[in-house]
Amino acid sequence: MTVDYVHGYSEQETRRLGDQADILAALLHQGTAYPAGSRVLEAGCGVGAQTVHLVTGSPGAHITAVDVDGDSLERARARVAAHCPGAAVEWHRADLFDLPFPDASFDHLFVCFVLEHLWDPERALRDLRRLLRPGGSITVVEGDHGSALLHPDGARARAVIDCQVRLQAAAGGDALIGRRLQPLLTGAGYGDVVVRPRTVYADRTRPELVEGFTRNTFIALFEGVRDDALALGLTTPDDWDRGIAELRRIADDDGTLHYTFFKAVAVNPPCGAPR
Amino acid sequence: MTVDYVHGYSEQETRRLGDQADILAALLHQGTAYPAGSRVLEAGCGVGAQTVHLVTGSPGAHITAVDVDGDSLERARARVAAHCPGAAVEWHRADLFDLPFPDASFDHLFVCFVLEHLWDPERALRDLRRLLRPGGSITVVEGDHGSALLHPDGARARAVIDCQVRLQAAAGGDALIGRRLQPLLTGAGYGDVVVRPRTVYADRTRPELVEGFTRNTFIALFEGVRDDALALGLTTPDDWDRGIAELRRIADDDGTLHYTFFKAVAVNPPCGAPR
Repeated sequence: MTVDYVHGYSEQETRRLGDQADILAALLHQGTAYPAGSRVLEAGCGVGAQTVHLVTGSPGAHITAVDVDGDSLERARARVAAHCPGAAVEWHRADLFDLPFPDASFDHLFVCFVLEHLWDPERALRDLRRLLRPGGSITVVEGDHGSALLHPDGARARAVIDCQVRLQAAAGGDALIGRRLQPLLTGAGYGDVVVRPRTVYADRTRPELVEGFTRNTFIALFEGVRDDALALGLTTPDDWDRGIAELRRIADDDGTLHYTFFKAVAVNPPCGAPR
Repeated sequence: MTVDYVHGYSEQETRRLGDQADILAALLHQGTAYPAGSRVLEAGCGVGAQTVHLVTGSPGAHITAVDVDGDSLERARARVAAHCPGAAVEWHRADLFDLPFPDASFDHLFVCFVLEHLWDPERALRDLRRLLRPGGSITVVEGDHGSALLHPDGARARAVIDCQVRLQAAAGGDALIGRRLQPLLTGAGYGDVVVRPRTVYADRTRPELVEGFTRNTFIALFEGVRDDALALGLTTPDDWDRGIAELRRIADDDGTLHYTFFKAVAVNPPCGAPR
């Protein structure tokens, strides 16, 4: 048995991804605003969780959003219509490794929570660079499950996180990809690579983060992959349920959660520069 | 065999702690400035690595620095004299759990990289609160080795980090304490507890951080505990040396390091408030 994609597709997952995007919008989108008239490609828009914030942050830009999954694309379209009525996003159903655009079609690329799912993220970045005009920018955002610090800490809770990491690896992805954005972008031929951590920390003094991030984003991510983890034989029902119970304690009154996303900005070298 | 204190005391360690403090000063001291005339206690000043930045950041404050170790105190005094000539720091040799000051002697407390070494950090925080006037503030800075994200990642390198965590535990400390500053301060009776992560990320685009933090602070920390780790039987010479070799790769051209410090500010509740 294989798992094609560990996030998205279900109603519950769509809600989770939306919650995550809303609560993290300030953190992840800060500094991302494209000039009016610029051509922006969101590669792998999924259910449109980030597209809404992209449109809001860059109201004058021409945004094109692409995803391989037709259902997700429909949800994305509905989400943007509901949140940003009148926004003129161009939607395309297409494979990231076979995008139907001429060379240098875009001034900017935006790629959020996509590379973590790909067998060959460096190749994807290289392919995407073809679509970017020389001097144009790419922005990449990814998490890294290794950054999850739990309090109270517990071996069972960490085993649940580890299950998800192995599940994502079994599907060809890498839930620990954040730490290697720099070498990936450099290897794919981009220049001026700047990577910065965007760290979330939640405790009782930030109840909206405990609810929106710790509970509805972080814990919910693991709760959502129970069936897949069992189907792949990565855990037993008992171990899993005890792990989830332990994990939920980080949302209690004395609990804390630390998690780091990585945001990278890089440039397609201008003509003449070595590619 | 026991290990009393895993940092400090040697010339090399003094240099390492100084390097760490200098390279991280902007990150860790940002937001810490005490008004002229205010009485500030640095509890556990060690070799004065942070004292220098405290004096620089709050030139008009009356700073008192305490450490249990006479040698460290001498080094701290020399360091401050060299870096901040004319600074009037009061130096006291004393145990953190038995400080020779009357109640409410200070307006502010500063405690950096100290709790990680204590058997009972909550009791230390409670004892310290006695010295703080009602309404006065405490600032606490600690790391958390669980936040170390390595690229390239490797089991041997992580085993070295784990060794250091166990070594610190064997000495009665906790190298994973950062994540629990919030419950510790709350449990010790402080109010208005605000904890924020201060995350360091180093890659080839920040050579001064690769040199100052990755190499001379982070890797150097582990290089410095080889003998103790071997003496306690936590590793073998071969495993250790291969682990260190693997760890050093994070300072290579395609390497990255992520590490989070936690900075907490809290208040001794004003008179009448429940303590």
